Amino acid sequence: MQGTTETEAAAYTPTDRTVPTRSMDRSSYDKELVHAILDEGYVCHLGFVRDGAPVVLPTLYGRVGERLYVHGSTGSRPLRMSGETDPGLPVCLTVTHVDGLVLARSAFHHSINYRSVVVHGIARQVTDPEERRMALDALVNHVVPGRAADSRPANKKELAATAVIRLDLDEVSAKLRTGDANDDPEDLALPHWAGVLPLQKGYGAPVPNADLAPGVELPDYLKAR
Amino acid sequence: MQGTTETEAAAYTPTDRTVPTRSMDRSSYDKELVHAILDEGYVCHLGFVRDGAPVVLPTLYGRVGERLYVHGSTGSRPLRMSGETDPGLPVCLTVTHVDGLVLARSAFHHSINYRSVVVHGIARQVTDPEERRMALDALVNHVVPGRAADSRPANKKELAATAVIRLDLDEVSAKLRTGDANDDPEDLALPHWAGVLPLQKGYGAPVPNADLAPGVELPDYLKAR
Repeated sequence: MQGTTETEAAAYTPTDRTVPTRSMDRSSYDKELVHAILDEGYVCHLGFVRDGAPVVLPTLYGRVGERLYVHGSTGSRPLRMSGETDPGLPVCLTVTHVDGLVLARSAFHHSINYRSVVVHGIARQVTDPEERRMALDALVNHVVPGRAADSRPANKKELAATAVIRLDLDEVSAKLRTGDANDDPEDLALPHWAGVLPLQKGYGAPVPNADLAPGVELPDYLKAR
Repeated sequence: MQGTTETEAAAYTPTDRTVPTRSMDRSSYDKELVHAILDEGYVCHLGFVRDGAPVVLPTLYGRVGERLYVHGSTGSRPLRMSGETDPGLPVCLTVTHVDGLVLARSAFHHSINYRSVVVHGIARQVTDPEERRMALDALVNHVVPGRAADSRPANKKELAATAVIRLDLDEVSAKLRTGDANDDPEDLALPHWAGVLPLQKGYGAPVPNADLAPGVELPDYLKAR
């Protein structure tokens, strides 16, 4: 039983919604993998239902352990709806990285190498002042680690204008594709090139604000990028 | 009246769903801008409703004029649902590019520079064989322009296993943020660095398949990247 407990602690429990109908070998419920994919992203795609129809919006997010936080204006739709709806707003939050273009000899087997995380759950408004502050720090630190400590914290007016919602990492799966193109055996001799064109991400030189006060230097945590 | 007609042709008509409740200055309905954002992306996030809850999945797409196409296994959920549901499946398809991290003196004004397109509509299964072939070509050419002509076309078995859905570009909006951090006037003298850290995308060296037939050269359209 000890082994079972350890396994459960390291992975999310699959549910009907997180077990795919196909390509099951591409799915993972490993917490470390899920955290790594989430932490590498800048924007998630948050889905919710409005008047019976789906809405998918890109938005920033932050992670604290097994909790994700999203923030926005108190007037924005999903944040307002999560407060108005009891016991919260059903959402689906998805983060995707495209790692490479997969070119096969056959049109059919063209694909991409990617890593994605899909989180299903109920988004709830965070009202506890301490948790709200922690969540807002996590959102800023998600953009640049350590940045929250090197900026002016939110004041009362800003806090009042900001809604924070929480989504627990509970019903979660990762999905990924890696490696070569998978052509059928009878296509291997075709004269078309096959392989992967990797996509790379990087940072350009930091662009200081036009109104930057004289003498303000680029911080070390940005020089290292 | 001629001017009005020209304006309408160049832009999508805003609807209740595509006019935001805030930051309206970041919205655009310009068709050229929408097309450019869509054509630059590799993956869209497709949202639909299943058992009353939202689902958001990353998937490839292709564009032909004012139509978007998504494909997948005939067994995959959204593609199956779009065929079973009459008159189609309500979806929301979103494409987002993250262009830079915006660091403000205040935690509150941290943001990202981005460009996104949100498409609302009804996804319908494509059954016409000619349109299906054109859509599958568009999907391959979206990954690498011109690639469809340099690969083996889908055979009968592959076509039978592939479902294609169409989403018309009708209820569409783009949203974007560009430029500096926007701090409040009283924060401009704070000692925190403010500005933008640009994110850059590029391609790595192509990785040929391990089972590539001898003598198959890298095509010119991949050398140019």
